[in-house]
Amino acid sequence: MLLAALQFCPVRGDIAANIAAMQSLVAGQSFDLLVIPELASTGYFYTDPQELLPLCEFPAEGAFTQWMLQLAAQRNAPVIGGFAERDRAGRLFNSAFIALPNGEWSVYRKTHLFYKEKLIFQPGDSGFLVTEWNGVRIGTMICYDWRFPESARTLALRGADVIAHPSNLVAAKNLWGPTMCTRSFENKVISVTANRAGIETLQGETLTFTGESQIVGMNGAVLADCGPDAATIIAAEADPLATRSKRINSFNDLFADRRPQAYQ
Amino acid sequence: MLLAALQFCPVRGDIAANIAAMQSLVAGQSFDLLVIPELASTGYFYTDPQELLPLCEFPAEGAFTQWMLQLAAQRNAPVIGGFAERDRAGRLFNSAFIALPNGEWSVYRKTHLFYKEKLIFQPGDSGFLVTEWNGVRIGTMICYDWRFPESARTLALRGADVIAHPSNLVAAKNLWGPTMCTRSFENKVISVTANRAGIETLQGETLTFTGESQIVGMNGAVLADCGPDAATIIAAEADPLATRSKRINSFNDLFADRRPQAYQ
Repeated sequence: MLLAALQFCPVRGDIAANIAAMQSLVAGQSFDLLVIPELASTGYFYTDPQELLPLCEFPAEGAFTQWMLQLAAQRNAPVIGGFAERDRAGRLFNSAFIALPNGEWSVYRKTHLFYKEKLIFQPGDSGFLVTEWNGVRIGTMICYDWRFPESARTLALRGADVIAHPSNLVAAKNLWGPTMCTRSFENKVISVTANRAGIETLQGETLTFTGESQIVGMNGAVLADCGPDAATIIAAEADPLATRSKRINSFNDLFADRRPQAYQ
Repeated sequence: MLLAALQFCPVRGDIAANIAAMQSLVAGQSFDLLVIPELASTGYFYTDPQELLPLCEFPAEGAFTQWMLQLAAQRNAPVIGGFAERDRAGRLFNSAFIALPNGEWSVYRKTHLFYKEKLIFQPGDSGFLVTEWNGVRIGTMICYDWRFPESARTLALRGADVIAHPSNLVAAKNLWGPTMCTRSFENKVISVTANRAGIETLQGETLTFTGESQIVGMNGAVLADCGPDAATIIAAEADPLATRSKRINSFNDLFADRRPQAYQ
């Protein structure tokens, strides 16, 4: 199975330009599963909900999520990417849209909000979701969820073979990169982090996104990555079904050995 | 505070020789807290409980745990090390003895048993313990507990500033080393892994212990380490009280941001 992550630098506020940029990147690349960064269509740095609201989508009704569904159908491959979601009550969520080739979709709402996201988004209420397509189980978490071992653990315990991880990381790669290797290693799952590149400045404050997207195998080894500024798609072959056995030797199984009664 | 980890190659079955080797290593080294490997007095590889039983100690009654209490008192520093424990019913545990300078002590019984330990030891029933000395909170886990993020997480949530990690690791350092950095980083705690060196052969099977003990700061950086075969003590200065705030910016706190209702 060819897993892929798209990295680029979105233009803040210009959804059409961002979809065009992503369309141009996917044109030359085959994949069986594609992960796109967090808030890929809108850009990241907003502190005024009134500014972001007009850019938000109802899932599967806006330009970006419709494009994702179209792409998934064309390529016969799930596409998972971050978008600014609104609900009918006008509440905003930092969400991921999971588009399946058959037109079905689901939405993961980011559980752990980072920094000034807390000024505009509601904490996610979807819980950690695992979606199955073509016998492969895809779990989704967004960006700062990486800091909490419970995120990947919950997805793995719910059966995820692959963790799709749309991100707008500002943390240094030498912090989040090895940690995502640990997330794969400790759960024996594949992880696909699609990070964005570039900077955004708002009210005198500049955020620098660290790029360096990576795909990690179930043994914790990096299978593919790229530079901090690249606009590209990285891809790696991996076998999701090999993640199903959590056995590491004839006596130990990473899940069967767990002792939840001892955990806080 | 000067944190230290002792690494050496125990002689299987020779408690007196092992205590003498450790005594010789500590003689030239100052410390405010010392961690000693797992099963340091007996060696590791046993599959017959009847062979190990005579080498086991009731806590604070046998030669090794008494030596640890003496050392803690002499140096006015907690000493945490692994030993083969027996209880009054003759059951065996892979345990850590936490010796305090005032003569108080506690015992942590390894929660997650590795490989053929399952043939001779009972699964630990102590739970993850945090011991306070001189205002510093010390949590203890043993070796294979590292593979489970819940171990360090539970200790950190119970207030540990420093995780003492007596080990007999056979995993490659490039697996357990970075993972222990993640354990420190994700919990904002210090970790002290005292691993053993050398090999043991039993019934034609050879285990190679990977040494390379390490001390990791709360930001995930390695503060001290050593080679795979060294018989030595490594030490590093660190401030345990700095671990108490889990804040990482003006909006985020690693513990306050947790959302247990979303975790499995």
